[in-house]
Amino acid sequence: MNYRYSKRLDSFSSSAVREILKLTQRKSIISFAGGLPAEEHFPVAAIGEAFDRVLAAGNKALQYGLTEGFLPLRESICKWMAPKGVTITPDDLLITTGSQQAIDLLTRIYIDPGDVILVEKPTYLSALQVFRSYGAELVSVETDEDGIVLDDLAAKLKQYSPKLVYVIPTFSNPTGKAWSLDRRKGVLELCRANDALILEDDPYGELKFGDASLTYPSLFSLDAHPQGSCVVYTSTFSKTVAPALRTGWVMADPEIVRHMARAKQAADLHSSSMDQQALHQLIEHFDLAGHIEFVRKEYEARMRQMADLLSQQDWPGVTWNEPKGGMFFWLQLPESVDTAELLKTAVDLGVAFVPGVSFFADGSGRNTMRLNFTHNDAEGTIAGMKRLDQAMQSVLVK
Amino acid sequence: MNYRYSKRLDSFSSSAVREILKLTQRKSIISFAGGLPAEEHFPVAAIGEAFDRVLAAGNKALQYGLTEGFLPLRESICKWMAPKGVTITPDDLLITTGSQQAIDLLTRIYIDPGDVILVEKPTYLSALQVFRSYGAELVSVETDEDGIVLDDLAAKLKQYSPKLVYVIPTFSNPTGKAWSLDRRKGVLELCRANDALILEDDPYGELKFGDASLTYPSLFSLDAHPQGSCVVYTSTFSKTVAPALRTGWVMADPEIVRHMARAKQAADLHSSSMDQQALHQLIEHFDLAGHIEFVRKEYEARMRQMADLLSQQDWPGVTWNEPKGGMFFWLQLPESVDTAELLKTAVDLGVAFVPGVSFFADGSGRNTMRLNFTHNDAEGTIAGMKRLDQAMQSVLVK
Repeated sequence: MNYRYSKRLDSFSSSAVREILKLTQRKSIISFAGGLPAEEHFPVAAIGEAFDRVLAAGNKALQYGLTEGFLPLRESICKWMAPKGVTITPDDLLITTGSQQAIDLLTRIYIDPGDVILVEKPTYLSALQVFRSYGAELVSVETDEDGIVLDDLAAKLKQYSPKLVYVIPTFSNPTGKAWSLDRRKGVLELCRANDALILEDDPYGELKFGDASLTYPSLFSLDAHPQGSCVVYTSTFSKTVAPALRTGWVMADPEIVRHMARAKQAADLHSSSMDQQALHQLIEHFDLAGHIEFVRKEYEARMRQMADLLSQQDWPGVTWNEPKGGMFFWLQLPESVDTAELLKTAVDLGVAFVPGVSFFADGSGRNTMRLNFTHNDAEGTIAGMKRLDQAMQSVLVK
Repeated sequence: MNYRYSKRLDSFSSSAVREILKLTQRKSIISFAGGLPAEEHFPVAAIGEAFDRVLAAGNKALQYGLTEGFLPLRESICKWMAPKGVTITPDDLLITTGSQQAIDLLTRIYIDPGDVILVEKPTYLSALQVFRSYGAELVSVETDEDGIVLDDLAAKLKQYSPKLVYVIPTFSNPTGKAWSLDRRKGVLELCRANDALILEDDPYGELKFGDASLTYPSLFSLDAHPQGSCVVYTSTFSKTVAPALRTGWVMADPEIVRHMARAKQAADLHSSSMDQQALHQLIEHFDLAGHIEFVRKEYEARMRQMADLLSQQDWPGVTWNEPKGGMFFWLQLPESVDTAELLKTAVDLGVAFVPGVSFFADGSGRNTMRLNFTHNDAEGTIAGMKRLDQAMQSVLVK
């Protein structure tokens, strides 16, 4: 049998993170690689009660559901988003299998082969993979400490007339940066003037560190919405409740939502309605805001611990940011170091990270790496950093 | 904001079934439309215990999982399939969000725009929608009581050199037919000789009626497998356990499975691992085979009841099959009747069905309809048939 695959097959290279995740299932490896939340903080008892409530409500809970998602959960999300300056109804949102599926579905209804998508330099690697699989041409836009660089964005909007601009303005994956308000407004203005739709990916927005009075309004909330919005916004419960429930959502102009729902109907009919119903029960009967505040503080402590450990290292030529939220440190190594090569040494020494090159659409960043600080406890982080230091010493010139 | 959708948008017309499902959420409608299992037979207590077991095992159950699916569930499925003549390992299968996602993922890695896919006449409407969304050209192959017509298949394999042949050999949706063994073997031989991959969709195989000694081996089991198989087989727990869990699987040559897993990684990272773990617990601790036998008998009784009611009608020029399994009756009306028009009358009278035209790739079948017999209880079926009779009387000439 001669299998005759589609041309797009080549675009589905396996993501580095997922392959490393497989590797690091060996218990002896301390992993700073995956974007994993801390397991010990999952509200397992409350989730158990939520599932009990769903099944106590009777057999109907186990029937097929609507493609758009469980209506009471959509209503809960509308209420949840209201204090964040977002005014929407359930018709303006679609439940997805994680925000990953929202990226896939929007690309499916919006991008033809050869269309240009602008992305931050660097950006979330699995979004790049989706865009490539639909034949998009990816163009990177420069970023600095305050977010995407407006001059470069303006030039590239003009040069490429991109259909889509993909951004993570709040606690970026991989850099942990948060855009300034001026940049947020500037990007909206530029994109609207150029009919470029913005896909705002916001998985980490709830995980904010530092001064509690700082706020980072979403692009979606800053734009007129939902009707005629130039922003499609996606988020997820994976980081605030638990990843296993695979429940995310996307908010947009209701016409876009309707088209995405039809694409989802073909893709998988609907996401798990057990999980959707359980999340609805959880939001109704559990102090989710209190839980998020608890997790936020724990993650900030873990971030601080890793920042302290990083400052104690003798790593000449290595720089890093201090994340304003989210889950990741982002390291720049000397130009001479290829972190994909370094990973092999590191894994031999029992520690893993993600080589940064995967986050660059243009193939640059070979001397960068992403470190997750949320998954390991204090002891694990100390041990992992010792191993990482050993690996680093093998490539850093003194 | 001027939204610039992709060209494929037009292919995502909403499926008739899903739109009717929305309509029929009004309680006053008796629906023979959706392919819904009987809610009262869902093993809700056992499913509750299964979720309890998953959460009792600890927080790790709520973490991210592998794209390929929860390994113990994949092992359970291998064991489940063994008595059905299928010898595979977990590497030869991928867990999907229902078998709908298996259809989508295979199409994604296998079909380029303009590629030909052969389909049965008629066939599952949501598969047609997926194929169209990837730009496939669909060609219908004639069927008779014993399955796909081999001469027509041979001619079309030669004429179109299709990459893919999509079939539901066992209790077809929409016709309820089961292919004979000769047809099964004939299709395998023809497709292998022409390098045409077969997608065998088997959601209903467990729901067999009539003589218990009758067996319908899957095409996958009849072909050399898994290595080099010319069959990709997909099934689901939606009909045997419950749809809300959205858990299906696909078995194939491990190279195909690997490619599909990479496509799934981009599509949604992984399906709900709560549902996957719960299904594994259910299979371990519950008499699933006994439950399926119970459901099978109940559905056969419902099928018999509807067959009796159909025979009592005075509907000149209307013929129907007696399903050999599955969930559907398939009715042929006189050529003069357009069942899409008839549906409007029927819904006004408080009953719904699926107009048959959606199941035909070539736009024929305007005088056909599909009736589901599994979802309503005896009383509901009697009342619904009375309303359907009223609707029929408005279009049938005596």
